[in-house]
Amino acid sequence: MRSRRACVARPEDVGLAIADMGLPFLWRPDVATRTFPRPPLLWQHVVAIEEVAMAVPSRRGDPRRRMRPGGRSARVNEAVLDAVLDEIVESGYAKLSFERVAARAGVHKATLYRRWANKEELLAEALLAHTGSAVPMPDTGSLREDLRRLTHAIAANISSPDGQGLLRTLVSDAGRVPEIAGAARTFWSERFALAGAVVGRGVERGELPPDTDVAFLIERLIAPLFLRVLVTAEPIDAAYADRIVDALLDSATAG
Amino acid sequence: MRSRRACVARPEDVGLAIADMGLPFLWRPDVATRTFPRPPLLWQHVVAIEEVAMAVPSRRGDPRRRMRPGGRSARVNEAVLDAVLDEIVESGYAKLSFERVAARAGVHKATLYRRWANKEELLAEALLAHTGSAVPMPDTGSLREDLRRLTHAIAANISSPDGQGLLRTLVSDAGRVPEIAGAARTFWSERFALAGAVVGRGVERGELPPDTDVAFLIERLIAPLFLRVLVTAEPIDAAYADRIVDALLDSATAG
Repeated sequence: MRSRRACVARPEDVGLAIADMGLPFLWRPDVATRTFPRPPLLWQHVVAIEEVAMAVPSRRGDPRRRMRPGGRSARVNEAVLDAVLDEIVESGYAKLSFERVAARAGVHKATLYRRWANKEELLAEALLAHTGSAVPMPDTGSLREDLRRLTHAIAANISSPDGQGLLRTLVSDAGRVPEIAGAARTFWSERFALAGAVVGRGVERGELPPDTDVAFLIERLIAPLFLRVLVTAEPIDAAYADRIVDALLDSATAG
Repeated sequence: MRSRRACVARPEDVGLAIADMGLPFLWRPDVATRTFPRPPLLWQHVVAIEEVAMAVPSRRGDPRRRMRPGGRSARVNEAVLDAVLDEIVESGYAKLSFERVAARAGVHKATLYRRWANKEELLAEALLAHTGSAVPMPDTGSLREDLRRLTHAIAANISSPDGQGLLRTLVSDAGRVPEIAGAARTFWSERFALAGAVVGRGVERGELPPDTDVAFLIERLIAPLFLRVLVTAEPIDAAYADRIVDALLDSATAG
């Protein structure tokens, strides 16, 4: 379903969306690349103008709002999952409802009921979609470099205003709503599997011992970032993230 | 000031308080020991009955409600600092006020204004008083044993219902109220200094290299506990806490 928002987008909004998204996404929206091999079309020539407008209404600069490949169904999914997180940041999980999400995403409520069984599923999938874009899994051929990129992306994601807002709301609501813990476990199970594959490639290359407890390593990799953002109110910079990576890898290989 | 609550305490409440506090605190309230070298007095012989009653009204079983040494001034402090945390758990930091704290603690508002400059100071001191009781700093002569006891106490404190309630409220409110970050930094600066002394004794005994970055080690020691409680919704047990300690100490000495 083409979003209602797409149909009413004003040219100046579309212009902002273009500036926000980066031009490469415009002329070949199916290729998620930041390189720029040939000159962009002028924006008025872009055929996928409604798809561009989908990215307009909120959170400019958020990577997950950028164009992703896929047809109408994928666009509806994206609009819905974005709306879920926006609703949570604005009003908390308790007030989240299929009705409000449908209204915000500009889709029919029935569409949501067809695709998601309940709020817990919706939350887990929205978090996975957001984090999948904001914190991609690197594969540079070097575990140290991969983990540096991973921690940098996590640090940027959880210390951004939007990321902090979402995280703090969920941490707070989870004390009252047990299903948030369920969604958190679904989310983290998937994220640990993805990060586990990154670490696993390092093990295969001999950068870590074969008996490495991958999940325990990932916990100790990301925990200090969350501690600083949520608990001790200390800043995080790239050097700090790198120190965590180095401490883990150096100790794992020194043993 | 003797608390109003103390004067109206019923014998059965005092009995509960005694059961809660542990008898050693009764007959020698100035000695904070759990050992029991001679038979306790019967509770009706206890002279400090009003002090006992101070511990009655709320949060039975919370270690910070136990009797601590000190006179009237110390008791007022304790009542006020307890009231601060109770108010925050119930209503959040934004609604915290000297008026409400004074009313809850049963003391005059002027008393609070004499002792604390603002809410930020009050929060930092309340957190330090609570955590000082709930998470004492061990000194067993072995760094590994000290850090195990420390992580066990932290895990128990932050996963208890009261501890989680307080932590989640502060994490949530800190996104809206910058002075919570100020109080957090005061709190953590003091706690890191105390834990740093524990680690420092280990360094002096040769259990860690002299160039150990003590603060970085403490961050990596406690971070996985907070990650599991606040973020990944995974349970913590003593074996997990011990693994964190072992991983840190074994890697620090293997390098």
